[in-house]
Amino acid sequence: MSTKPPSGTRDFLPDDLRRREYVIGVVRDVYERYGFEPLETPAFENIETLLGKYGEEGNKLIFKILKRGEHESSGEADLALRYDLTVPLARVVAEYQNELPKFFKRYQIQPVWRADRPARGRFREFYQCDIDSIGSTSPSVEAEQLAAVADVLERLGFQDFDIRLNHRELLTGLLASAGVPARLHGDALVTIDKLDKIKRDGVLAELASRGVDAASAATCLDLFAAPFPDGLRSRLGTDERALNGVARIEAIVGLAAATAAGRHLRVDPSLARGLSYYTGAIMEIAVPDLAGSLGGGGRYDNLIGMFLGRDVPACGFSLGLERIIVVMTERQMFPPDVVRGAVDVMVTIWNQDASGQSLALAADLRRGGLRVEVYPDADKLGKQFKYASARHVPFVTIEGDDERARGEVAIKDLRSGEQTGVLRADAAAYMKARLTGSSGSPDRA
Amino acid sequence: MSTKPPSGTRDFLPDDLRRREYVIGVVRDVYERYGFEPLETPAFENIETLLGKYGEEGNKLIFKILKRGEHESSGEADLALRYDLTVPLARVVAEYQNELPKFFKRYQIQPVWRADRPARGRFREFYQCDIDSIGSTSPSVEAEQLAAVADVLERLGFQDFDIRLNHRELLTGLLASAGVPARLHGDALVTIDKLDKIKRDGVLAELASRGVDAASAATCLDLFAAPFPDGLRSRLGTDERALNGVARIEAIVGLAAATAAGRHLRVDPSLARGLSYYTGAIMEIAVPDLAGSLGGGGRYDNLIGMFLGRDVPACGFSLGLERIIVVMTERQMFPPDVVRGAVDVMVTIWNQDASGQSLALAADLRRGGLRVEVYPDADKLGKQFKYASARHVPFVTIEGDDERARGEVAIKDLRSGEQTGVLRADAAAYMKARLTGSSGSPDRA
Repeated sequence: MSTKPPSGTRDFLPDDLRRREYVIGVVRDVYERYGFEPLETPAFENIETLLGKYGEEGNKLIFKILKRGEHESSGEADLALRYDLTVPLARVVAEYQNELPKFFKRYQIQPVWRADRPARGRFREFYQCDIDSIGSTSPSVEAEQLAAVADVLERLGFQDFDIRLNHRELLTGLLASAGVPARLHGDALVTIDKLDKIKRDGVLAELASRGVDAASAATCLDLFAAPFPDGLRSRLGTDERALNGVARIEAIVGLAAATAAGRHLRVDPSLARGLSYYTGAIMEIAVPDLAGSLGGGGRYDNLIGMFLGRDVPACGFSLGLERIIVVMTERQMFPPDVVRGAVDVMVTIWNQDASGQSLALAADLRRGGLRVEVYPDADKLGKQFKYASARHVPFVTIEGDDERARGEVAIKDLRSGEQTGVLRADAAAYMKARLTGSSGSPDRA
Repeated sequence: MSTKPPSGTRDFLPDDLRRREYVIGVVRDVYERYGFEPLETPAFENIETLLGKYGEEGNKLIFKILKRGEHESSGEADLALRYDLTVPLARVVAEYQNELPKFFKRYQIQPVWRADRPARGRFREFYQCDIDSIGSTSPSVEAEQLAAVADVLERLGFQDFDIRLNHRELLTGLLASAGVPARLHGDALVTIDKLDKIKRDGVLAELASRGVDAASAATCLDLFAAPFPDGLRSRLGTDERALNGVARIEAIVGLAAATAAGRHLRVDPSLARGLSYYTGAIMEIAVPDLAGSLGGGGRYDNLIGMFLGRDVPACGFSLGLERIIVVMTERQMFPPDVVRGAVDVMVTIWNQDASGQSLALAADLRRGGLRVEVYPDADKLGKQFKYASARHVPFVTIEGDDERARGEVAIKDLRSGEQTGVLRADAAAYMKARLTGSSGSPDRA
């Protein structure tokens, strides 16, 4: 029997997990400062909630759960694992419409599951960190979301990220004014999305192979390169939707100027984004040394209507935890004290009879705010020290008969080798004072 | 299409989630003080990892995931959702045996899934908060775990809980010395487990119906009532395993005496616990007003061997998050500031042209450590105030043309109705000072 985790998934040992929790802590803190409230939904949904929301490709990547009991042998699935955090949110907004505020702003940090082929940085279980704002069409919604994710990334130490911004209506208008027939728009967008990767010539060749004539394709690429907003606007003619897209982008850029997003924003009329439910602004964040994005989002004013029966405006942004961690690890961006030893002090056992005494000392030290491990077996002291040292525990305590008679505890600093007798009542404070400022212990009294 | 979460699962709206996060925060903090380190494993395991570990009943309750792609139509399952946190831990210990410390102590706080019939307080998705100590047979392991969970419960405000303690070998010895044949031990334990519910007469009747003769059944119940340890020991004769069980229990009680567990401990030779993998001490925590337990655990020295090929001693305790929350909610044990409003201050919009200004003010206030919402649309001020008030936001800011000319912001305290002009640069500090000590905001500068 294999003891590995299933293909595409990972076990998180303590050091990994502390790095993840550090990032999640920053994300959560920033999201809360922007007035987003926490939400969690079940790991699985009724299967019909998910099917048909992510396109044909998406449907295939959904993990489906067998019916239980007598139906198990039928092979029928009635539940499916969460594929993203947006569709469950749309269901929640419909279900609790009378309880939620008019402008509902929520964040959700939970795993999602996709049966993708595993690859470097691509997993079958991965965390998304989403914010969504429900109930307003104001461009300040997009601007606030971009500010929030820019704040998160800057707090984590990122400086060189680009926020690309586009609008679905501008994109459609551009294709139309370049002469690409509407039936080819979907294909054309998929191709255009690869501009960064396969460059201008590659895109021209692929557009041709997909049936877009050479003149339209060239016009299209020229339009993408036209200076925003005036150069572009002068070439869009009177396409109202496209002009609306330009105006929305301008409004978002103007509003975001004084926020953390301001200096990272770059309007990019060639940005396409994969998901079909976007209806307005689309946004994506990337750093130079990572293929793919750190996150993305956009406005989807019709999705909630699929559950609620009437449309409710909505806009969201999703940060990908795994990719953020990949880049932070490669660039060594984690503060040194994120991965700290599990314990501040190990209480040794003098002999078997004294082990109750060790547990009592441990209880006192914990009350004093320390993280304390008790060595479980009455091994030789040297062996106990060696174990503590291998585990990078800064302090060990020894409570021998002499110390006990004096009401003291001997405290050995394994970093310096120094050993001191300290009154038992002062032991916790003694060690706390010597841990502060080191990487040993956060303040937690 | 239904917008409810799947049967037996729940959506957690912000107030619910803040209560859960409060409890999880306390659990995590106490577990860390005991030197346990965090671990997380994937939501699903290869199906053969789980099958056969939980008994026949357990197998039926496992959620199974369909194979993907061309195999989907076969109805075959190759993955299954995590059923508890212990079996994945055993797999992890086997997989990373060379990386983990000799005495590996981990905590794990994650959901598990069981296809049980949903009922009040019984869900198909629920969280377990587990600690496990690997690598030592010392009774100080059990004592430390009991101290940790008692500490958790006391920190949460529980005072009236009982920790019942027993030992599998004592139980087996008791049945044997009462004359119950070994082949009936399993049935007898299931019946004895109901002693609290169906009382002495009920147990006697059920034991009879399961084939235990009347004299053995009566002896058995008398033995349970014999004073621990001496009364019991004098009646156990020379059954070595049973005497070892008594000695282990005595050692655990002695070691736990000076810890938080001490005054809650109650030896109960009739405690049985369901899971088949326990080999030594078994433990369970209950409060008077809840049927069932708040948590339980025990020693399982053979489970890891199923993955590793050689036995490694292990002991664990699992706290049930949902039941803790049920009791805390019924008894109103949550501190009042756990459920706090999502925001400290709402920045109003003076008019459409000034919305960039509002976002800039919001950015400043966030840098000052406040949780800030920006009202998205340029509605009438009265409507904006009303919204903030309905959301229990303590402050709103107004930055009209006059205030702007003076370099000020008007700050209205919606709790008192008082409105004050404050220099823009002082606005964050002004509100922070008035939030401290109230339930509005934790310190987060």
